[in-house]
Amino acid sequence: MSSSRFSIDAVGYIDGCYPDKFGIPRQPGLVESASAHLILSGEYATADAVRGLEDFSHLWLTFVFHKSPERWTPLVRPPRLGGNRKVGVFASRATHRPNRLGLSLVELLKVDTHDGISLHIRGHDLMNGTPVVDIKPYLPWAESVPDARGGFADQAPPNLRVIFSATAKASLATLKQPGLEQLITDVLAQDPRPAYHPPSERRYGVSLGQHDIGFHAREDQHGIYLEVSDITPIPVP
Amino acid sequence: MSSSRFSIDAVGYIDGCYPDKFGIPRQPGLVESASAHLILSGEYATADAVRGLEDFSHLWLTFVFHKSPERWTPLVRPPRLGGNRKVGVFASRATHRPNRLGLSLVELLKVDTHDGISLHIRGHDLMNGTPVVDIKPYLPWAESVPDARGGFADQAPPNLRVIFSATAKASLATLKQPGLEQLITDVLAQDPRPAYHPPSERRYGVSLGQHDIGFHAREDQHGIYLEVSDITPIPVP
Repeated sequence: MSSSRFSIDAVGYIDGCYPDKFGIPRQPGLVESASAHLILSGEYATADAVRGLEDFSHLWLTFVFHKSPERWTPLVRPPRLGGNRKVGVFASRATHRPNRLGLSLVELLKVDTHDGISLHIRGHDLMNGTPVVDIKPYLPWAESVPDARGGFADQAPPNLRVIFSATAKASLATLKQPGLEQLITDVLAQDPRPAYHPPSERRYGVSLGQHDIGFHAREDQHGIYLEVSDITPIPVP
Repeated sequence: MSSSRFSIDAVGYIDGCYPDKFGIPRQPGLVESASAHLILSGEYATADAVRGLEDFSHLWLTFVFHKSPERWTPLVRPPRLGGNRKVGVFASRATHRPNRLGLSLVELLKVDTHDGISLHIRGHDLMNGTPVVDIKPYLPWAESVPDARGGFADQAPPNLRVIFSATAKASLATLKQPGLEQLITDVLAQDPRPAYHPPSERRYGVSLGQHDIGFHAREDQHGIYLEVSDITPIPVP
């Protein structure tokens, strides 16, 4: 291995509410109702390695965008710019990047060392199975810079309105899944549609936890909103 | 390569004011007078990859602690705890960690694309030659969490007093290096001594830029302070 190339190893994996890439919020912290477990694996699954971690409210996870292609391109089109303006890959948080490394700030809810070692986290933006390669505590005095200039992504993206059809409401009432309505609302408010899709009769589908969510983009005098049309449990294979 | 192991490549290297490990501040942002260039290398040295980066004031650098041993231990002794209490490696920012990945928030001063591609940065905590494996913009609306609980490292470490001996003052006057006095003061204020060293006649040496700085720990009625005893240009090999 030359001095420019390094081998890294997953220290754990994500098990949470995002089985697929589509629908995952484009940054962490946008969907507080999203929770997951980071399950430490192999030699890293030792209580010693997480001793004292519960004293921190927020963690950095460094992970690999394992479903992104290994090939990278110097220019990317961030969804925030409507998908029609290119910026350098290092000026973006795009997943198609050299080394495919991601960085997410998540809230730590609980450290569980009873049955294996797992961290219960919230506000994440990670697909199930994502390999995590490092865990670090967040240091507010060093890493909170509210006045930093954020370029094209200077503010949180606006939230879309989300409503539930009568069918979707009935499904929610039948399914009785605590938190599911909030999770659907929060995830769809981020507008997971690809950039530049006009309202149409097209049905979009997003998988959240054990459920497949169908939705449509509609428009009224206030602008575009998303309507949840159907909610179906995903058959367990 | 199994699905748990990934190969990553340096996208650039640090060229700055810290030729050695000893003396480097223990977190970024503590020494604003520290500046460096991140020089992109190989296929990553393309102006396209950094297009738009100048719109951001702060960057995340993910890098490899290339001088740390590859062997990791689950428990570490953070200097902030006086070196006598152990915490889990994932509850610390210790360099002896799985995958040896570091994360630094730095201020971006300038993007230079005229002679190669380099980023002029400030407030870093990186040794010369550090391989950087990713560059990302800082997102203040997502990553500034001033109220986060910071565990054992909830506040910036206190600054030590730093004074210059008559000999050191004379050297500064002769050397006429702009910024050197400030850099020495800021770096020593972080107390680079190993934990638990009582004041003694021992001379410590720290290399900053092209200079070797000698200092001693002293004590008076206000407590411990550091005295810069000598400043010597490092001979160019």
